[in-house]
Amino acid sequence: MIITSVNNQLIKKIESLKRKKFRDEYGLFVVQETHMIEEALKAGCIDTLIIREGCDNVFGIEAVYVSDNVMKKISSNVSLNDYVAVCRKLDSKPDSINTAIVLENVQDPGNVGTIIRTAYAFGYDAVYLLDGCADEYNEKTIQSSQGAIFHIPVLRGNLEEVKVLKNNGLHIVATTLSSSHYLREAEKHDKFALLFGNEGNGLSDDATLLADENIKIEMCNFESLNVANAMAICSYFYKFNQ
Amino acid sequence: MIITSVNNQLIKKIESLKRKKFRDEYGLFVVQETHMIEEALKAGCIDTLIIREGCDNVFGIEAVYVSDNVMKKISSNVSLNDYVAVCRKLDSKPDSINTAIVLENVQDPGNVGTIIRTAYAFGYDAVYLLDGCADEYNEKTIQSSQGAIFHIPVLRGNLEEVKVLKNNGLHIVATTLSSSHYLREAEKHDKFALLFGNEGNGLSDDATLLADENIKIEMCNFESLNVANAMAICSYFYKFNQ
Repeated sequence: MIITSVNNQLIKKIESLKRKKFRDEYGLFVVQETHMIEEALKAGCIDTLIIREGCDNVFGIEAVYVSDNVMKKISSNVSLNDYVAVCRKLDSKPDSINTAIVLENVQDPGNVGTIIRTAYAFGYDAVYLLDGCADEYNEKTIQSSQGAIFHIPVLRGNLEEVKVLKNNGLHIVATTLSSSHYLREAEKHDKFALLFGNEGNGLSDDATLLADENIKIEMCNFESLNVANAMAICSYFYKFNQ
Repeated sequence: MIITSVNNQLIKKIESLKRKKFRDEYGLFVVQETHMIEEALKAGCIDTLIIREGCDNVFGIEAVYVSDNVMKKISSNVSLNDYVAVCRKLDSKPDSINTAIVLENVQDPGNVGTIIRTAYAFGYDAVYLLDGCADEYNEKTIQSSQGAIFHIPVLRGNLEEVKVLKNNGLHIVATTLSSSHYLREAEKHDKFALLFGNEGNGLSDDATLLADENIKIEMCNFESLNVANAMAICSYFYKFNQ
């Protein structure tokens, strides 16, 4: 059977997943790119695989076939997708956390996704998204993560999480311009969490108060970098260059 | 006088500047955000300032007023702009170049803009955009650059530019996974150019052949980072950490 109506209940449900409200309600999210569907398959979290009529099922799992007009309705890309996967939200419970990235109020899904990608590449144990951060299941976040979201635990929470990390012996590092020294002069620690704040306003005072050390990146001009770039530099430095 | 028709010749011309073809033909580009219009004003490159009817002229230069429907037509943002500036393309001729960032076939305007922002923050002398790179006057590039485009020379060209840099004594560094050593082991040089390639395919063989040194970034997982993140790490390292 091929679904040909955009008013089909399953199709309407998939469309609703563009909104966080419904992703939360159903515990589902949508993956659009083929190489990320492969990652989702490896992670065992595909709920429903949608295939465009006439395309081969290259994933080896049961699928629902749809006509071009229906695929167009659920595709976010300009070009028509051959495949779309509806996935179950991931259950991220890391055993132990020695190194973590903590984001507070980072609102751009592209930045959040890029940071998740880099945290995974550099072998961090977890990424915390505190209040005000973009949803990790937003399509742009998933796309920017390039599939890393399926490999590294991404946890939601508030500053209580940072207190727990601190109690567990992690050295808490705030990236901020005030009362900070340069990254080059940062203390060496094996267990640490790096905190990054909002794109425009940086970290909150409450977050900075929890820090054991405040650092800033050396610069010649301007007073800020893109937050994903700042995270890339600091996370590299702390992992590989101390 | 207030322009109220979206068919006005000036408005149609501004709209056409969304396309590279017309930006090139007229030698003009559009800036949408107020704090970047301020940078354009400082750079002395504003050709025409457009103000929405009822808003104050906070820039102190002559302006053209338009009605809401006209401003909506030329605004790229979801919300209605109060100001839009049409700017003359910048004439970037740096005196001497000791440190440069060279991009080849970096197609995403957001990545190109972020890289220009970081290059300026770290005090590089110029950014080269070789064949296949996104247009530096694309609205997304300008937005991601956060105004840095008005401060650092951005030059177009091909691999001949890299040969000129090499002849001028710059150490040419290619970022590539093949036949490369880790960034931590990079040679120290005062004059250098860092080359970054396409988001998916990396640098071309021709570009790598020009390099004096091939480097890669240490990683635990994956084989790639977002190109703007890779550039941030390498450009920081070469400027501040050697």
